[in-house]
Amino acid sequence: MLEIFNHGKIRELRLARPPVNALNPELVKLLTQSLREAETECGALIISGREGIFSAGLDVVELMQLDRQGIADFWSAFFELLETVALSKIPIAAAITGHSPAGGAVVCLMCDYRVMSRGEYRIGLNETRVGLIIPPVLQNAMARLVGPKLAEQMLVAGTLIAPESAVKNGFVDALETGYEATIQHAIQWCEKLLSLPQHSMLGNRSIARAHFKQEFASNTPASVASFVDTWFSDETQKVIAALVAQLKSKG
Amino acid sequence: MLEIFNHGKIRELRLARPPVNALNPELVKLLTQSLREAETECGALIISGREGIFSAGLDVVELMQLDRQGIADFWSAFFELLETVALSKIPIAAAITGHSPAGGAVVCLMCDYRVMSRGEYRIGLNETRVGLIIPPVLQNAMARLVGPKLAEQMLVAGTLIAPESAVKNGFVDALETGYEATIQHAIQWCEKLLSLPQHSMLGNRSIARAHFKQEFASNTPASVASFVDTWFSDETQKVIAALVAQLKSKG
Amino acid sequence: MLEIFNHGKIRELRLARPPVNALNPELVKLLTQSLREAETECGALIISGREGIFSAGLDVVELMQLDRQGIADFWSAFFELLETVALSKIPIAAAITGHSPAGGAVVCLMCDYRVMSRGEYRIGLNETRVGLIIPPVLQNAMARLVGPKLAEQMLVAGTLIAPESAVKNGFVDALETGYEATIQHAIQWCEKLLSLPQHSMLGNRSIARAHFKQEFASNTPASVASFVDTWFSDETQKVIAALVAQLKSKG
Repeated sequence: MLEIFNHGKIRELRLARPPVNALNPELVKLLTQSLREAETECGALIISGREGIFSAGLDVVELMQLDRQGIADFWSAFFELLETVALSKIPIAAAITGHSPAGGAVVCLMCDYRVMSRGEYRIGLNETRVGLIIPPVLQNAMARLVGPKLAEQMLVAGTLIAPESAVKNGFVDALETGYEATIQHAIQWCEKLLSLPQHSMLGNRSIARAHFKQEFASNTPASVASFVDTWFSDETQKVIAALVAQLKSKG
Repeated sequence: MLEIFNHGKIRELRLARPPVNALNPELVKLLTQSLREAETECGALIISGREGIFSAGLDVVELMQLDRQGIADFWSAFFELLETVALSKIPIAAAITGHSPAGGAVVCLMCDYRVMSRGEYRIGLNETRVGLIIPPVLQNAMARLVGPKLAEQMLVAGTLIAPESAVKNGFVDALETGYEATIQHAIQWCEKLLSLPQHSMLGNRSIARAHFKQEFASNTPASVASFVDTWFSDETQKVIAALVAQLKSKG
Repeated sequence: MLEIFNHGKIRELRLARPPVNALNPELVKLLTQSLREAETECGALIISGREGIFSAGLDVVELMQLDRQGIADFWSAFFELLETVALSKIPIAAAITGHSPAGGAVVCLMCDYRVMSRGEYRIGLNETRVGLIIPPVLQNAMARLVGPKLAEQMLVAGTLIAPESAVKNGFVDALETGYEATIQHAIQWCEKLLSLPQHSMLGNRSIARAHFKQEFASNTPASVASFVDTWFSDETQKVIAALVAQLKSKG
């Protein structure tokens, strides 16, 4: 479900839940826990995926079986994961080794740096298309990457884009050709930061990312309730049921 | 003064006040009222202009005849129009079919999307050149499109730019060749949004545009008084009188 | 130490402290005082450097001889300089005539406009590399120029960039070839602003830069104490001592 590799002081957490690294409650908890362990044991982190897929996002097939409490618990746990990435004490690079829609893209937003593999892949927050509503903290994180206007337009339309567009508009920071090259790029990015005076690198980083602290603090229980309400609304259930049917017919 | 067309669930409000679609009290009120009606009757909106001119901005010839109360009322009504555009419950595209300086550009800033006609046209907030001061809410709206630094530099210098520059720096979102193509592009943009699950499209849009709510709420009566003071200052009266003389010699 | 030239209503303050225009307590005070005088005597300002060097930043050799009180006084004075630039009543262009790392770049951030000479020069906030931590007000000023994501990545890594990269990502606004051309460009930028109605140019500028007022107001005594603590930390003293040794072996 999650493979762990150490490259010197750099730890790579590789999502390994075939076929599409869908984020279910178990993977979300395991990833959060592994990130916390790494913070005290390592100097920098990489979150990577399988060849061709970083993560397809939330595991809607599994989530459709949960009741209101189950969905509330999952959404809280997913936000805990995102907060853990965003407020990590050490830098995190995303090695986006393939498709990364919706929840997969959201995890990438929270990292310090994003390198993506070239190919017929798509990345973006297409939640509108699956009937979901993206909370302010995540919308703001996207605005930091591509600017507030483009973030609004992409979020409203649920736009998925190719790697070349993503690097052009700032959604990702660099492209590489091939799986290994993508991971190597992330390792080199980490190594560069680890070669600097650590107290000032981390001190400047902490100030630059302090806004995340305030924004996650504003993610109240009310916003969890709001997600649960949306999830169980007739409109969203209908869209997700159609999506699940489509996924099952493929599988 | 304002022509109304329906394209399925999309309503087009076409500014039609020759020669330059200048915004006088009557047009501002009519546009505000038509936007409100459309919100309950339609799924998406287009504001368009005449061939070669979107709007030349405020009708300074007519405004020069108003007393302090008249200017205060007009400025309040103009802000009500801008707030109505910015906080519209349904998406709005601007089909910028030609020149769009000053007040014309300000209306465009508040829309969700801007497509402009290629040609010898200019767009921008050139208020500095006509002696007027742009309130924070409008400056911030421009910063969302082109970034805070460029917004500051363009606003301070009163810069007008060509369509090609406008699409490059983010002031507009797309260009089209010809009047009909510009309006068709806006219609297609609306149709695309209307093809998505509406509750999540509108829910995500509402969060992305919530900042407008806070900013317009801060536009106090004091800021209206400040506009009136500037309008009747010797410096501004002199600049506008020269502008009016120039317009009349042309007309 | 500081040469003063008047070009009509435009005053040029030329840093002239060989070899590298390092900012020591004396130059910082003189520059602040000269900026304040110019505000009441001129219409616009230019801060320029020597051929090949704008400023190498803080004079670490001299600062290493100061005690805690001396460093606290210097840091307060440097912030007073930055605040004076940022909140100047008249527009300021930086004519970046060569290298401009660290403190040199920070002064440029606070100006209204930046033109840089083409050549083998570097600009950027490389404080991480010299063990220093950049306070929020300066990080935010950089984010206004290059966007929040790139600002974070450059600040954390202490990245120095070439003029071509700087104009591409917005750190500077224009490039010129040669020393005189760079200063002439700055003069022409000032002249353009001085040709506009001054009350509206300055009125719009004041609103566009109001954020600086709030941000400098939040720069409490606590942040001075924090800088002093960092300066005298073992890690930073070690990095700066190595830097000073390197500078002395060169000199």
